[in-house]
Amino acid sequence: MREILLSTKDKETGQPDTLAVYDTSGPFGDAGETVDLTRGVKPLREDWIEARGDTQRLSGLSSDYGRQRLMDASLDHLRFNHARKHPRKAVGQPVTQMYYARQGVITPEMEYVAIRENQQLENQLGKVFQPITAEMVRDEVAAGRAIIPANINHPECEPMVIGRRFLVKINANIGNSPVTSDIASEVSKSIHAIRWGADTVMDLSTGANIHETREWILRNSPVPIGSVPLYQALEKVGGKAEDLTWEVYRDTLIEQAEQGVDYFTIHAGLLRKYIPHTFKRMTGIVSRGGSIMASWCTAHQQENFLYTHFEEICDILAAYDVGVSLGDGLRPGSQFDANDAAQFGELVTMGELTKIAWSRHVQVMIEGPGHVPMHLIAENMEMELRHCFDAPFYTLGPLVTDIAPGYDHITSAIGGSMIAQMGASMLCYVTPKEHLGLPDRDDVKTGVVTFKIAAHAADIAKGHPGAILRDHAMSKARYEFRWLDQFHLALDPDTAYAFHDATLPDDADKRAHYCSMCGEHFCSMRANRKIRETC
Amino acid sequence: MREILLSTKDKETGQPDTLAVYDTSGPFGDAGETVDLTRGVKPLREDWIEARGDTQRLSGLSSDYGRQRLMDASLDHLRFNHARKHPRKAVGQPVTQMYYARQGVITPEMEYVAIRENQQLENQLGKVFQPITAEMVRDEVAAGRAIIPANINHPECEPMVIGRRFLVKINANIGNSPVTSDIASEVSKSIHAIRWGADTVMDLSTGANIHETREWILRNSPVPIGSVPLYQALEKVGGKAEDLTWEVYRDTLIEQAEQGVDYFTIHAGLLRKYIPHTFKRMTGIVSRGGSIMASWCTAHQQENFLYTHFEEICDILAAYDVGVSLGDGLRPGSQFDANDAAQFGELVTMGELTKIAWSRHVQVMIEGPGHVPMHLIAENMEMELRHCFDAPFYTLGPLVTDIAPGYDHITSAIGGSMIAQMGASMLCYVTPKEHLGLPDRDDVKTGVVTFKIAAHAADIAKGHPGAILRDHAMSKARYEFRWLDQFHLALDPDTAYAFHDATLPDDADKRAHYCSMCGEHFCSMRANRKIRETC
Repeated sequence: MREILLSTKDKETGQPDTLAVYDTSGPFGDAGETVDLTRGVKPLREDWIEARGDTQRLSGLSSDYGRQRLMDASLDHLRFNHARKHPRKAVGQPVTQMYYARQGVITPEMEYVAIRENQQLENQLGKVFQPITAEMVRDEVAAGRAIIPANINHPECEPMVIGRRFLVKINANIGNSPVTSDIASEVSKSIHAIRWGADTVMDLSTGANIHETREWILRNSPVPIGSVPLYQALEKVGGKAEDLTWEVYRDTLIEQAEQGVDYFTIHAGLLRKYIPHTFKRMTGIVSRGGSIMASWCTAHQQENFLYTHFEEICDILAAYDVGVSLGDGLRPGSQFDANDAAQFGELVTMGELTKIAWSRHVQVMIEGPGHVPMHLIAENMEMELRHCFDAPFYTLGPLVTDIAPGYDHITSAIGGSMIAQMGASMLCYVTPKEHLGLPDRDDVKTGVVTFKIAAHAADIAKGHPGAILRDHAMSKARYEFRWLDQFHLALDPDTAYAFHDATLPDDADKRAHYCSMCGEHFCSMRANRKIRETC
Repeated sequence: MREILLSTKDKETGQPDTLAVYDTSGPFGDAGETVDLTRGVKPLREDWIEARGDTQRLSGLSSDYGRQRLMDASLDHLRFNHARKHPRKAVGQPVTQMYYARQGVITPEMEYVAIRENQQLENQLGKVFQPITAEMVRDEVAAGRAIIPANINHPECEPMVIGRRFLVKINANIGNSPVTSDIASEVSKSIHAIRWGADTVMDLSTGANIHETREWILRNSPVPIGSVPLYQALEKVGGKAEDLTWEVYRDTLIEQAEQGVDYFTIHAGLLRKYIPHTFKRMTGIVSRGGSIMASWCTAHQQENFLYTHFEEICDILAAYDVGVSLGDGLRPGSQFDANDAAQFGELVTMGELTKIAWSRHVQVMIEGPGHVPMHLIAENMEMELRHCFDAPFYTLGPLVTDIAPGYDHITSAIGGSMIAQMGASMLCYVTPKEHLGLPDRDDVKTGVVTFKIAAHAADIAKGHPGAILRDHAMSKARYEFRWLDQFHLALDPDTAYAFHDATLPDDADKRAHYCSMCGEHFCSMRANRKIRETC
């Protein structure tokens, strides 16, 4: 949590008023902490994981690729010095949060999550009203309606929950591409994303040295990290989809699970039979993972190996508590393609896979579109709930029009806020660079803040207890011309301050009872006082 | 209309494909036209107005203030040289579009509007399918469900329609304030706004020389101009609300009507009895006009003179065809205050006033909130339709959260797209500077493009015939890697081009079959071709 210090004082105690808000930045948001990026952040969960006694430290890495990279001296200059060479693995039973929840156990992770979701209320209402209890978190996780992505090899992660009864979360995608980017800039983007409010970060790297990049990102991340193992598997076979094998993919799963990735996007719902449906589309298959698997299926005339090996995948995931985010390889990439047979066919298969994952105690979320006009959004949410049995829905947008490249953070925040109000649990951000190029740091920030808006608007609309308190604090500060309090309460204080400075740069203006929009005579807020007194 | 030239060719004719889109920029968007700002744009409607034979040219200005400013030599350097010194006025019957519609007459304005709303279809579908006919426009205007703001003294205006069955429109606010701004920059903002797609512009000036500023804006505006006469009336009495009189206000109405303002925001629905309801609010009265009238009512212990003189106001408006936009002086300024007794009380009175205006053939729209959480938006639309008899709803946002100063173009576009889908006819833009300061040119552009997104998304969701064609053209260009076509089809080609340039600046990259987001191997669009061939 973060406590925002206000300029007003409590009438009784004389202490300054504060507002506690949910915060994702971990030690990076703590003035009292200094993080040495070459050592990573503190492993908060280490003792909890150890205490459960259900894991062992391995003598070395289990994946061929992980070992190979470790022994490659030419990579020494790129390597994170404190990479985990002895990862943990389950000794027997699954080690997932879902497994424990189903046993009736409240893990420290569940307790942490419950406290965290209540923060605003504890502060404002004197710790009396705590609607989100650890028991409720446990029950939601046990039922599959919520997930706590928390790989046992990512002890640095501050637990968080993704589910319909909790605050709407947002994910920021980062990652290099073969065309541009390097390790330092990706780590910097990741930290920038969580500093502005990303609840999880997906490392979608597809370029060089993605194993090493991921290690740097994970060791410096207080939020869950997601990935798409297929991307790296494809790199390993020289970028040729037809050369992919289950063995290469399997090794990649283990490699990444032992690094600590908290959830994997797996495009196991894309079956061969759905591919011909995409030929009627305006934009075919727009998911990277979807097009890779469709290429593989087509080249081999075989069923998607992620589908045929899904049980085995789940067993690997259960041994590390990696969540599965079922990728929507057939999501629509244009308004024209929304809600078609390809998309909804895959969704039904995702429901089938959800049951399999749950039978192995693997935590599941379902990825959703994409490009969808506003009037077709509700059907997506309804279909997901029905066919995937209330598993959390994690959507990309949806983008409500195709004609605004350069502004797709906005087209997607419109659809995102709507679907979150309807029940989506996490929104994947979209940056202004979507459809045009790889986002830079500024784009990452714009994407994150925009999606915090969408998520927060949905939290208010859903009546999440406490969400509205920050709005009330802001409105009160606005009415009382407490400019600095307004900036501090804003999702992006820097921009709010700078914009005010643009027309009224003097310090005195930050105390003035009007602003440059209307000036003094036309300031309605000023007039109110007099009206109240006179009326 | 504007025709976007694509790089593909028609299979039959061999001619380049084009897409016609609705365009608001008038001669400013026409490469073949040069506009001399000191002379203004051509008076397109002059002959139509003349031909109706229902108006006369006056020997001079009718307002005291207009005459006074004209005779003031110290203003010569500020004055628009070709200001209309002999405005038109009705000779007898009302001259409003509503009056004619009710007589069964289709005016050239109605015909223009019908053609304009159909443009995209004429182009794409060979002029066969024209769902929006002049008869339909006439019937909607006659019923009060749509308005065509078209002052007889603003012949430069290209007619446009605001109503639920037509494309959703957007308004851009400009105008100087006592704190900052000058005539040149306001004219520049106005032209910038229409060049990016503002359907109407409201001049909300409250600073010096607003009479002269307005003349420059009107003479250079191919879109309807709205204003809030109360602001200028307040300036005339030295900024003291209690010194306002009906006489000063009346003179201001005539002054502005004779300059050519197409619609007036009039806060006549704010009755004395509603004021005490605002005392329970978090942010009181946030409308500038609302706070001025509440101050006046309170100071004089009298009913709002805009309400008591509303018949007389309508008679003035009918003589020039100025539309009335009933101002929501009690709109909520915070999530806390949304949908309260003050707001809905005023709305009911606006319905009463709508009937009065219609009885005098004056065109009416209803202004709406404001700050409203998503789950309370629908009630606003339903109440408006019920209590104001289907008069067009013209909303500011609504902003769906209060905590994002610096990003309120986004918080309001979310609410705006939702309420437009539900039936709002025009959205007032909000810029990133909202709550912080006066917008500059860049803010105006950002606000306009953001609201074009919201309006367009609603057009698609409402099934407006033709709206989706641009999305399809964009998606097709995207799938075929026609980068330049994508930029040209974008709401903001400049930004799309610049963002693509940011990572791939070479000309060759504008023809490449991938982009920097995913690179070549990971480009799903590339993969599709092969999948189709092989499958």
